[in-house]
Amino acid sequence: MRLPDTATLSTRQARIREQFDTLNIDALVITSFPNIRYLANHVGSAGILVLTAEGAHLVVDFRYESAVTALQASSSACPSLRVWPVPASYEEALLRCLSELGLGRVGLEATNVTLARYEWLVANATSRSLSISFRSTSGLIERARMVKDATEIAILREAAQRLDGVVDAAFKAIKGGVPEREVALQIEGAMRDAGYERLAFDTIVASGPNAALPHHRAGERMLAHGDLVVLDFGGVLDGYCCDITRTVAVGQASPRARDLYDAVQAAHQAALAAVRPGVQTTAVDAAARGVLEAKGLGPNFGHGTGHGLGLDVHEDPRVGKPRQDVEPVTLEAGMVFTIEPGAYVAGFGGVRIEDDVLVTDTGCELLTRPGRELLIF
Amino acid sequence: MRLPDTATLSTRQARIREQFDTLNIDALVITSFPNIRYLANHVGSAGILVLTAEGAHLVVDFRYESAVTALQASSSACPSLRVWPVPASYEEALLRCLSELGLGRVGLEATNVTLARYEWLVANATSRSLSISFRSTSGLIERARMVKDATEIAILREAAQRLDGVVDAAFKAIKGGVPEREVALQIEGAMRDAGYERLAFDTIVASGPNAALPHHRAGERMLAHGDLVVLDFGGVLDGYCCDITRTVAVGQASPRARDLYDAVQAAHQAALAAVRPGVQTTAVDAAARGVLEAKGLGPNFGHGTGHGLGLDVHEDPRVGKPRQDVEPVTLEAGMVFTIEPGAYVAGFGGVRIEDDVLVTDTGCELLTRPGRELLIF
Repeated sequence: MRLPDTATLSTRQARIREQFDTLNIDALVITSFPNIRYLANHVGSAGILVLTAEGAHLVVDFRYESAVTALQASSSACPSLRVWPVPASYEEALLRCLSELGLGRVGLEATNVTLARYEWLVANATSRSLSISFRSTSGLIERARMVKDATEIAILREAAQRLDGVVDAAFKAIKGGVPEREVALQIEGAMRDAGYERLAFDTIVASGPNAALPHHRAGERMLAHGDLVVLDFGGVLDGYCCDITRTVAVGQASPRARDLYDAVQAAHQAALAAVRPGVQTTAVDAAARGVLEAKGLGPNFGHGTGHGLGLDVHEDPRVGKPRQDVEPVTLEAGMVFTIEPGAYVAGFGGVRIEDDVLVTDTGCELLTRPGRELLIF
Repeated sequence: MRLPDTATLSTRQARIREQFDTLNIDALVITSFPNIRYLANHVGSAGILVLTAEGAHLVVDFRYESAVTALQASSSACPSLRVWPVPASYEEALLRCLSELGLGRVGLEATNVTLARYEWLVANATSRSLSISFRSTSGLIERARMVKDATEIAILREAAQRLDGVVDAAFKAIKGGVPEREVALQIEGAMRDAGYERLAFDTIVASGPNAALPHHRAGERMLAHGDLVVLDFGGVLDGYCCDITRTVAVGQASPRARDLYDAVQAAHQAALAAVRPGVQTTAVDAAARGVLEAKGLGPNFGHGTGHGLGLDVHEDPRVGKPRQDVEPVTLEAGMVFTIEPGAYVAGFGGVRIEDDVLVTDTGCELLTRPGRELLIF
C-alpha cells in the first residue's frame, strides 16, 4: 500500500497546527480514523491521535503494535511520534496522555466524539483535579483534506482509471433476463480483478422502475427489454475512493428514455464546464440544475450534483444547492469530486451520469473515462 | 423480510417507557439505527425516533416516505406513529418535533449522539427560549435487546442453521496452493446462495502464520501443507447476524497444531457447559480462560470469549474478563451470543472455535451445527 512519506505528513500536520492559536487550543485530539490516517499514516479502526505544537501522540492498543513499529521504521514514518499503550480503556489512556503532557486547552473533533465520551473525559478530568478544558472544533482536518497533494492525486487518478475495465465488464453483463444481482456480481468480480482493496460502497444495479428509487441497490429483478439501467459502483485503492455511474438501455430505448438521458447528459456537461478555481460549489450545482429545470425536470433531480472523493467516498466539498447552515466552498486546484446529476421518474425509471474530476489551474481534468451517448445492449 | 408485528413492538416500547420515571425523562430521542429498527420497524440508515409516554414520532426524510407508508399499512406497523418530515436538517426537524410536543426532559442516547449535535441542540433550544433539558442515557435499549423475543429467536436460529451449507462450501475450498482470498470468495458465494442479505463482517481466512494475527482478513497467501487455517464468517438474515469460526488443517496437522486445537476445543466445551440462566458472563469467560491458562496458553488468548448477536454482530452481552468500568451481565433465557475461545502463537499459527448459543431455561441451545475434532483437508 502506497503511503505518503514523512515530509508530506509534516506538511499536513503543520497546516493543522497553524490554526491552534486562532482556535485557542494547545492540542487537538483526533478520533476520526480517516483523519488519523491522513495525519499519521496509522491505518486501522482503532486509535486516537493527539497533535500537539511539537509532536504527535498515538494512543493505540496492542493489536496495532507491530504495524506501528513497521510504519515507524519506514520512509512513511509519522514525524515525532510517541506511542501510548491502552492498558484498560481508550478514554483512560487518552486522559493519561493529556495529563502527562500537561496539556490545558484541548480541542476535540465535535462531529466524531460521542456525548458519552465527552462527558466521561470532563467528569474524570475534574475528579482527578486535572486542569484540562475541552473545546469543540469542527471540520478542521476535513477542510485540509479537500485539497489533495501529489501523492493523493496520483492514487486517485489511478483508482479512477482502473474503473475502465470494470465499466466494460458491467456493459458485457447487461442482457434481458439477467437479474440485477448477477450484474452486480460481475461488476464486483471485475473490481477485485482490477486490484481494488474493497468496494467503496454497495454496488447499485437499478433496472426499469427500480432506476427511479433513490435507495435501490441490486435485487432479484431481471433486466427487461426497453429498461433503463443505472449502474453505480466504486472501489478503494490505497485507501482512496473512486465512484462512477453509467446508465444504459436494454435492447432499445424509447423516445422518452432518450429524452431523459439527453437532459441529464446536458446537465452533466454544463456542470463540468463550470468547474474551475474560484467558482463556488453551489454554482456548479446550479449549472446542472438549471439545465434540468429548463426541461421541467427540476423536481426529478432530488439530490446534489456531487461530493468530494478521498479517504472517504463522501467527503467535502459537497456540490449542492445553497444551504443556510453550510458555507459553500470555493473551488481550488487539487480538489477532487464527483459530478453526478440525475433525473428520476417514479414508475418509469431514471438516469444518472457520474464522473470523477480533479480541479486544475484552469478548469478540470476528468479522472474517469468519459461516457458517451446512451448505449444500448 | 420478516418484521415483528405491532403487538411485539408495543411490548418492546412499553419496556423502555417503564424506565422513564427512574431516568427522570418525558421522552427518549433514539438515534441508533438498530435501536430505531428494534422499536419501530423503520429499516434505514437515516431517521430519528422520539419515544414519548404515549406515542412514537419518527423524524425521517423524503427518501423513506414510501417505505414508511407501506410499513404503516402492514401488520408490522409501528403503534401510534406520527411521521415528521425533514425540510432542512435532522437537527432542525427534531427540535421542531420536541418543541411542538411540548417536551421538557428529553433523554439522549449518549453513545450515539455526537458532541456537535448535542451542542447544536442545546444552543438552539436556548436561543429559541425552549425549556428543554437534555439528559444523557446509556445502554437503555441495548439492555432490552439482550433478551430476544420469539420473532428474533426464530430468525437467529434460521440464520445460524443456514451456515451449515456455507461451512461445507468453505471446507471444500481448502486445498494447498489456493490463495486465502479464493477461499473467502467461495465462502461469500455460498453465503449469497444461502440467502443472507449481506455479510455480517469481512470474511476471515487466516492461514499458517496469518492465523496468529488478530486483524488478518483474507489475502494473497496460498494455503500450504501443514497450515492451520482459521475461517471466520457470518451473514445477516432479516437483519439478524450469525457468526461462526472453524479451524482446519491443510494436508496434515503437526502434534503442536493438534495440541493447540485440543486446548481450544476443551476451553470451548468448558464455556458451553457454563452457560445457563443466573450465571454471570464473566464466569463463562473464566471457564474457557481457566482451561487455556492451565495449559500455559493464557497469554495466547488475547480476546474475550464471546459477544451478543442480534441486529448488531457485536452487541451486549459481552462475554469477557471482569472490567472495572463494565458491570457483568447475568445470563437470562433468550440471550444469544457467541462462544469463541482461541489461542494464537506468533509465527506459528492459531486456532479459534466459535459457535452461536441461545440461553434456555436450563442451559443453552447450540444454534450452529457443532464442530468436531480437527478436520484435515
